[in-house]
Amino acid sequence: MNRALLFGTAYYPEYMEEDRIDRDIEMMKSAGMNVVRIAESTWSTLEPVEGKFDFSYIDRVLYRTKEAGMSVIIGTPTYAVPSWLVKKDRDVMVETKDGRARYGHRQLINLLNPTFLSCAERVIRELVSHTAGYGHVIGFQIDNETKHYGNTGEQMQRLFKEYLKEKFCTTQKLNKAFCLEHWSNSIHRWDDLPDMSGCINGGLVSEFDRFRRKKAAEYLAWQADIVREYKRADQFITHNLDFEWKKFGADIAQDGYSYGIQPDMNHFEASKCLSIAGTDIYHPTQDELTGAETAFGGDEIRSLKNDNYLVLECQAQAFKYWTPYPGQLRLHAYGHLASGAAGILYWNWHSVHGGYETYWKGLLSHDMEENPAFKEAGIIGREWKRLGDKLCGLKKKNRVAIVADNQSLSALEWFPIDRDLSYNDVFRWMYDTLYEMNIECDVVDINNLEPEKYRMIITPALYCAAEEMLKKLDAFVKNGGVLVSSFKSFAADEHARVYADSQPHLLQECFGMSSNQYTEPGRTKIGGYPARYIAELLKPEEAETVEGYEHRYWGDYAGITRHRYGQGCAYYIGCFTDKEVLRKIYAQAAGDAEIHLPSYAWPVILRSGINCSGDVLHYLLHYSEEKEKISCPYAHVRDLLTGCEYRAGDEIELNDWDVHILEEVRQ
Amino acid sequence: MNRALLFGTAYYPEYMEEDRIDRDIEMMKSAGMNVVRIAESTWSTLEPVEGKFDFSYIDRVLYRTKEAGMSVIIGTPTYAVPSWLVKKDRDVMVETKDGRARYGHRQLINLLNPTFLSCAERVIRELVSHTAGYGHVIGFQIDNETKHYGNTGEQMQRLFKEYLKEKFCTTQKLNKAFCLEHWSNSIHRWDDLPDMSGCINGGLVSEFDRFRRKKAAEYLAWQADIVREYKRADQFITHNLDFEWKKFGADIAQDGYSYGIQPDMNHFEASKCLSIAGTDIYHPTQDELTGAETAFGGDEIRSLKNDNYLVLECQAQAFKYWTPYPGQLRLHAYGHLASGAAGILYWNWHSVHGGYETYWKGLLSHDMEENPAFKEAGIIGREWKRLGDKLCGLKKKNRVAIVADNQSLSALEWFPIDRDLSYNDVFRWMYDTLYEMNIECDVVDINNLEPEKYRMIITPALYCAAEEMLKKLDAFVKNGGVLVSSFKSFAADEHARVYADSQPHLLQECFGMSSNQYTEPGRTKIGGYPARYIAELLKPEEAETVEGYEHRYWGDYAGITRHRYGQGCAYYIGCFTDKEVLRKIYAQAAGDAEIHLPSYAWPVILRSGINCSGDVLHYLLHYSEEKEKISCPYAHVRDLLTGCEYRAGDEIELNDWDVHILEEVRQ
Amino acid sequence: MNRALLFGTAYYPEYMEEDRIDRDIEMMKSAGMNVVRIAESTWSTLEPVEGKFDFSYIDRVLYRTKEAGMSVIIGTPTYAVPSWLVKKDRDVMVETKDGRARYGHRQLINLLNPTFLSCAERVIRELVSHTAGYGHVIGFQIDNETKHYGNTGEQMQRLFKEYLKEKFCTTQKLNKAFCLEHWSNSIHRWDDLPDMSGCINGGLVSEFDRFRRKKAAEYLAWQADIVREYKRADQFITHNLDFEWKKFGADIAQDGYSYGIQPDMNHFEASKCLSIAGTDIYHPTQDELTGAETAFGGDEIRSLKNDNYLVLECQAQAFKYWTPYPGQLRLHAYGHLASGAAGILYWNWHSVHGGYETYWKGLLSHDMEENPAFKEAGIIGREWKRLGDKLCGLKKKNRVAIVADNQSLSALEWFPIDRDLSYNDVFRWMYDTLYEMNIECDVVDINNLEPEKYRMIITPALYCAAEEMLKKLDAFVKNGGVLVSSFKSFAADEHARVYADSQPHLLQECFGMSSNQYTEPGRTKIGGYPARYIAELLKPEEAETVEGYEHRYWGDYAGITRHRYGQGCAYYIGCFTDKEVLRKIYAQAAGDAEIHLPSYAWPVILRSGINCSGDVLHYLLHYSEEKEKISCPYAHVRDLLTGCEYRAGDEIELNDWDVHILEEVRQ
Repeated sequence: MNRALLFGTAYYPEYMEEDRIDRDIEMMKSAGMNVVRIAESTWSTLEPVEGKFDFSYIDRVLYRTKEAGMSVIIGTPTYAVPSWLVKKDRDVMVETKDGRARYGHRQLINLLNPTFLSCAERVIRELVSHTAGYGHVIGFQIDNETKHYGNTGEQMQRLFKEYLKEKFCTTQKLNKAFCLEHWSNSIHRWDDLPDMSGCINGGLVSEFDRFRRKKAAEYLAWQADIVREYKRADQFITHNLDFEWKKFGADIAQDGYSYGIQPDMNHFEASKCLSIAGTDIYHPTQDELTGAETAFGGDEIRSLKNDNYLVLECQAQAFKYWTPYPGQLRLHAYGHLASGAAGILYWNWHSVHGGYETYWKGLLSHDMEENPAFKEAGIIGREWKRLGDKLCGLKKKNRVAIVADNQSLSALEWFPIDRDLSYNDVFRWMYDTLYEMNIECDVVDINNLEPEKYRMIITPALYCAAEEMLKKLDAFVKNGGVLVSSFKSFAADEHARVYADSQPHLLQECFGMSSNQYTEPGRTKIGGYPARYIAELLKPEEAETVEGYEHRYWGDYAGITRHRYGQGCAYYIGCFTDKEVLRKIYAQAAGDAEIHLPSYAWPVILRSGINCSGDVLHYLLHYSEEKEKISCPYAHVRDLLTGCEYRAGDEIELNDWDVHILEEVRQ
Repeated sequence: MNRALLFGTAYYPEYMEEDRIDRDIEMMKSAGMNVVRIAESTWSTLEPVEGKFDFSYIDRVLYRTKEAGMSVIIGTPTYAVPSWLVKKDRDVMVETKDGRARYGHRQLINLLNPTFLSCAERVIRELVSHTAGYGHVIGFQIDNETKHYGNTGEQMQRLFKEYLKEKFCTTQKLNKAFCLEHWSNSIHRWDDLPDMSGCINGGLVSEFDRFRRKKAAEYLAWQADIVREYKRADQFITHNLDFEWKKFGADIAQDGYSYGIQPDMNHFEASKCLSIAGTDIYHPTQDELTGAETAFGGDEIRSLKNDNYLVLECQAQAFKYWTPYPGQLRLHAYGHLASGAAGILYWNWHSVHGGYETYWKGLLSHDMEENPAFKEAGIIGREWKRLGDKLCGLKKKNRVAIVADNQSLSALEWFPIDRDLSYNDVFRWMYDTLYEMNIECDVVDINNLEPEKYRMIITPALYCAAEEMLKKLDAFVKNGGVLVSSFKSFAADEHARVYADSQPHLLQECFGMSSNQYTEPGRTKIGGYPARYIAELLKPEEAETVEGYEHRYWGDYAGITRHRYGQGCAYYIGCFTDKEVLRKIYAQAAGDAEIHLPSYAWPVILRSGINCSGDVLHYLLHYSEEKEKISCPYAHVRDLLTGCEYRAGDEIELNDWDVHILEEVRQ
Repeated sequence: MNRALLFGTAYYPEYMEEDRIDRDIEMMKSAGMNVVRIAESTWSTLEPVEGKFDFSYIDRVLYRTKEAGMSVIIGTPTYAVPSWLVKKDRDVMVETKDGRARYGHRQLINLLNPTFLSCAERVIRELVSHTAGYGHVIGFQIDNETKHYGNTGEQMQRLFKEYLKEKFCTTQKLNKAFCLEHWSNSIHRWDDLPDMSGCINGGLVSEFDRFRRKKAAEYLAWQADIVREYKRADQFITHNLDFEWKKFGADIAQDGYSYGIQPDMNHFEASKCLSIAGTDIYHPTQDELTGAETAFGGDEIRSLKNDNYLVLECQAQAFKYWTPYPGQLRLHAYGHLASGAAGILYWNWHSVHGGYETYWKGLLSHDMEENPAFKEAGIIGREWKRLGDKLCGLKKKNRVAIVADNQSLSALEWFPIDRDLSYNDVFRWMYDTLYEMNIECDVVDINNLEPEKYRMIITPALYCAAEEMLKKLDAFVKNGGVLVSSFKSFAADEHARVYADSQPHLLQECFGMSSNQYTEPGRTKIGGYPARYIAELLKPEEAETVEGYEHRYWGDYAGITRHRYGQGCAYYIGCFTDKEVLRKIYAQAAGDAEIHLPSYAWPVILRSGINCSGDVLHYLLHYSEEKEKISCPYAHVRDLLTGCEYRAGDEIELNDWDVHILEEVRQ
């Protein structure tokens, strides 16, 4: 990609009652946009009747964007199928534990269905061959927010049996790996493997989840291979990776936000076939805007390839909760850049006048006229045009990693810590506290972790950990690393089978403590605050007790331990604490890791990196409606937005929802 | 009907273990009752085996009531089917999104099923021909609380496709009307129309709802046509129209109450085939008794034909929540008359000793003896015998209309304002505030609205409004009317497709303002009180701001506007406010409409009309356990109950749960 | 059984990855254990492929336990079926209202399925014949926690129809018994009996429940008959009867506790085929430990045969909520003995490393090493070895009975008192208050009640009561008994059909009052505390009003009445009161019954009985974390645990979670 930021929008002219392309492109241009994403989800428009293709609306967009000097990203349309495809073969709809999905909603597809695959292949070939030749088509998005959709269909189960056979060889080994003897679930012939939809063995179901994520990733790779047959070398392949969605409000309204690690797709696996990672990140706004989701999602997606990524969808005015206050839309945009985004595209251009997402509003309201959101987008567009070559290609070299693991997530759904505390709740508690302290980190899939790259590694509820990984972590600490692990880390192996010794398995020497009891905290306190959800009763051997439990009977046990081990240091946090307590641990651990702790904390957010020119940039993001003044923490910087220069100690004024981009002035 | 009030009860002697008819009729007579309703829901008793009829219990009731000088309403028994009918054809049970209904519950019938229709026709013909000749059979109730029961069966879907073909001619027009292009839901051959049970296009599902309501109304008309073949000219045809039911308490208990506009039947359509409208109204009692449901339900049903109506079921002692305090049963009864009821029948006479409604208690408890409720009914009976010719036939000519619309209700289920704010919540907020201020109104179906009849029209969340209606409302204001519209009015067309311009569509000139943004109110206040659920950000052009938003960022927008337009005036209320704020708006609007505002408000309720003799009656209903004294607001009135006369300013004493009926003394 | 207490554990060596039998048995012995229960739920291990049996793990356990001098209880493995059995015949899985159960979970079996029965018979015969010859196999447990599993399958329904035919002879009688005329549910040919899965007649469904409980009990008797063909005379047959389970926390976690009367099995019926009753009792621990469940469950199970019983499962460390405080595990154990248990077995020995019950922790944690729970078990084991002959065989002769009735429980699910008040809530309110006052009682199934054995009988919500039972209770009071009945007692007959006279049916003379109205209490108070859930409005005739309602309108009615009738006395409690009010009633009633009221109340619990030697033992159990001193209430006792002697008035020190066993010193 060249040294410009992508700034644009998803665009669905086919949803409009009347042809507005000229007016739309003109408005986009006036807002400084340089790219549109089209075609994903429009299969029934592109192929109205099986085998007959109508790319006229694509052509109109291609023509007008070319004329306007804009780029286009073409999405394969496969994530929403036309009704004729389901009439042709009802098995196109996925079968799940709740039965066969009904036609209507997007996505709920059986990705293994041959009819679907052959029709999808045809439409992809037609669309990509039709568009790849255009010079301003810069890349392709394959499918959209792909997941396994809870597939329990016959094909999926048959392939899973083959996979188990290959992995375990004998039923005996399978039984032992998952403790299937429990409740007479053991099998002694492969054909006795029961329907997984009734399975209550959490380990085996987690393995099924792992397998289904693999199949979903393979489906993406299959699409990428097809696209690769047609695309030019300079055209990228991307995909829109999404996060676990947290709902609030009405069932029917499409509300909620990007909350945590995606349970139904492994991002690291999925991204292997991509030339650039892409994502959508939605988040609370107005009084609830913290920037945490933008940072978390960006850190996760950037870490997949340790490179810049596309925000293929970001929110304009979606939902009544998210009508932005003045300044917030701009703050969102810079938040993405501060994480390393190569650009952003709004979802979407205009609000849709009918259909499920009628009130997932676009940049334009239903009246299709200029409005405050559109005008603020124009400010962003103009700034990016001016500063693009300074801002693009921001790279980071973080010294802290937080480790994500789909398998632990799946297993903890079956062996929950608490009704009200999920894997992602623990993850966000540990991530968000880092974020709020302005300790930047990579969010690294466990399969992508190279410990030696980091000074400090955080493991939130890393429940399933193969012995190989445990040895790596042991070596990491021995060699000088700082490990901070929460409760429920290192309890079970990769099949969610609990290790048959004291916890933390293989790492007792590293942590200098062991534990074989845990409890509901009840009235237990730690560090003066209530412990919540769980309290593992830690027995320090060589470790020091950083915080003990305040409780009549559990007072003999430690709640948080610290152990100097080899060149490094290992912390174990045995219970869910108040963030204040976690901050103290992080501060101490950062000290051990010789990581400098910034003087400011949320709502003042500092995120840094190095741009294409090798200059150091510090984003200063203010997530507050209050005005504030801070003292410049850098030796000598220039604000790219205002041109002001500051030296260490100079006062910097922060307005509500304000942004400064401070470039270090080379001496 | 003659100049007597109907006073009686639903009566199910076939539920009793022993024959008690003589004793029952004697007790009814002693309570002043003059009518019973029988036979609805007793199909398995009337036709125990297919084709064999046993009307002996009907005959016994007819004989004994005739002897006692009482009237009888015969209900067709079709709303609960015998099990032999379902054994004969399982498709008699309705198929819904949740699958085929199981036999047991009443109502869940596929009204399009040929087996059901032919058997229903036979039993109706047999029953009506058997009973129509009796002089004291005064009318027939067809079916009971009929609705479409969520029918998604094959027949319903096939007919719906035909209906769509006829309405839209081409799939292209269908796609555009509902924006089916979204998520590839567009079709290009009619046979591609997918199963509606998975449809997630809110507009198309709302159209399906409209169609299903139509089919349910046609079913009633079909029954009415059969009855008409047999009935005498002096015999009426009625039906028991019910309301949206709001549940509280246990799932299994049959509790809840009549809350709002019925989603699954259009009352106006349904009532066309009736000679007199009928209804059941159930409501909270004891400390929760406000009279609002009685007023709301009565105003709705009266407005269908602008005439008196039957309360075919009203509550005696149903549920533990509803055991009436002394005086409340009498207050209920007069509340119905004050709305224009032609009489009331209790549901039911006796409590049932088994079956689903065992604790939906009747006037008699399970012991079948006299009790406080029965005794209070006797007071009513005696008063009505004495005052019947004064009280019957009360007519109203209201100057205020509040507009109801099933289509907006359906659409807002898919595009909810808020998880906790339904269409009916908005409706009741606007209706109840009128009620509490003693501003009487008609509750008018949008298809039955003649604006010129009114001085003031209220539109709660009139989301779907065809342009023709918008023009009517514009003309109404221009010609001197006062329009008071809430948020979410005039946003979409009759297919729930949002209009592609600023809101309120076509009425921006009328309201003198426009809006293209809305938000969750968060901490926003209006008129000193919190705004809740939604805040549309109004931009007044010609309009004055009656109330602005109190909020850091939304303070620039208006929340409530008022605009003098032509001869009239238009108010727009952009958010859900405290009732206190709404009362202020209503008071100002009433002033604009030159409608006199009564000096008293709830719990003192005043409802008026003109009786058959042309006398003006004022019902004075006291919904409170406190005693109170008010000053007579009328020039010269006589209390029909006590004979006392009052002149303006005289003190009237109100006891707890008290009733006065003040007849204006002609000068 | 000999004069030793059984102390041991359920043991599943087949769940382990490695063979640990030697180490396990050694640890058990060191903890003083003398028994293990094996084999229930291990069918897929015992018969890995149909018809091929592998008892090698059984043999290993038998060999090692024999060597170690321990006893073994063999469980038939039928409550969890192998997947090959379901592959062979899918109808092995039960069909319920929610459809066919899926393979995975234990228990959900169609107990009437011929394939299941023939395969179950074969494995039982193989296992029992294989093991019965061992001298140290002391008994057999048939199946486990058997219930009817909501079976609505074809066989169950066909047999139910036969049962109804035989019971009612004509459909006419059936219709009347259940008031099927309601909503046209009456039938006039037996073949018209509809599918019970849609039935909404609460009486008929309750009859179906009764029938299904009968079938489940017959299934147990069938197993017992098979076992009896092989077992020696000295070997017992037992079964693990469980209670209604009350969940808290996450759906998936197996949490909750033994709360009340079992809805899906009649314990009295089920226990007829057993030589000794068995049970599992799980209960809250830590700050929530009250001892109430241990007492309630024990009193119920002991009363089935008026004999000692086995606690086949009791909790070790299950769930995070239940990690015992120091002393609690020992307190649990003595609590069981104090109710008359012949011994206890933990569930289970070790925590399982995979499968559904991974965190239902055993005595050993996942590390399989000594831990605080194991060590405390060792204390118990040593004490029991020392005191076994003193403690075993404790018998009681209680003068108070509380009456349990499955039929009332079933009926009140259909006719709920309140959303938040179940039959078992009422039961536990009345039982627990007795328990807390140290009034010991039998918990007697209504079919097992011999009133003449008691001085005082309590009936919580005895909704369904045949007239014969009512006459017995009348005679009981007449002859000097004290009857204490709650609201909703005596309302309906054995088919849940409400009696058609004032309540309490047939007992108005006995109670000296009647009632035909009830209400939601709202703001009503009684005895100074809020009345909750229900208030029956009682009209005392001969009775005295013990407590009247404090309410503006209900103040004329009594809430609690007392009536001297014949030689005895009858109390009726018309509403759910604060426990303080109930305690006052109990105290007065105990006085009437000449039952001595202990001077101490919970958390000081006193439970007594006579041991095999004819000595009187008083268990003094302290359910509190506080220390306390009480004054000895007995003339002269010796503490078996410490050897201390106390005379009346001597100070006894109670530590936190303390136990004393005071043997009366014979003078």
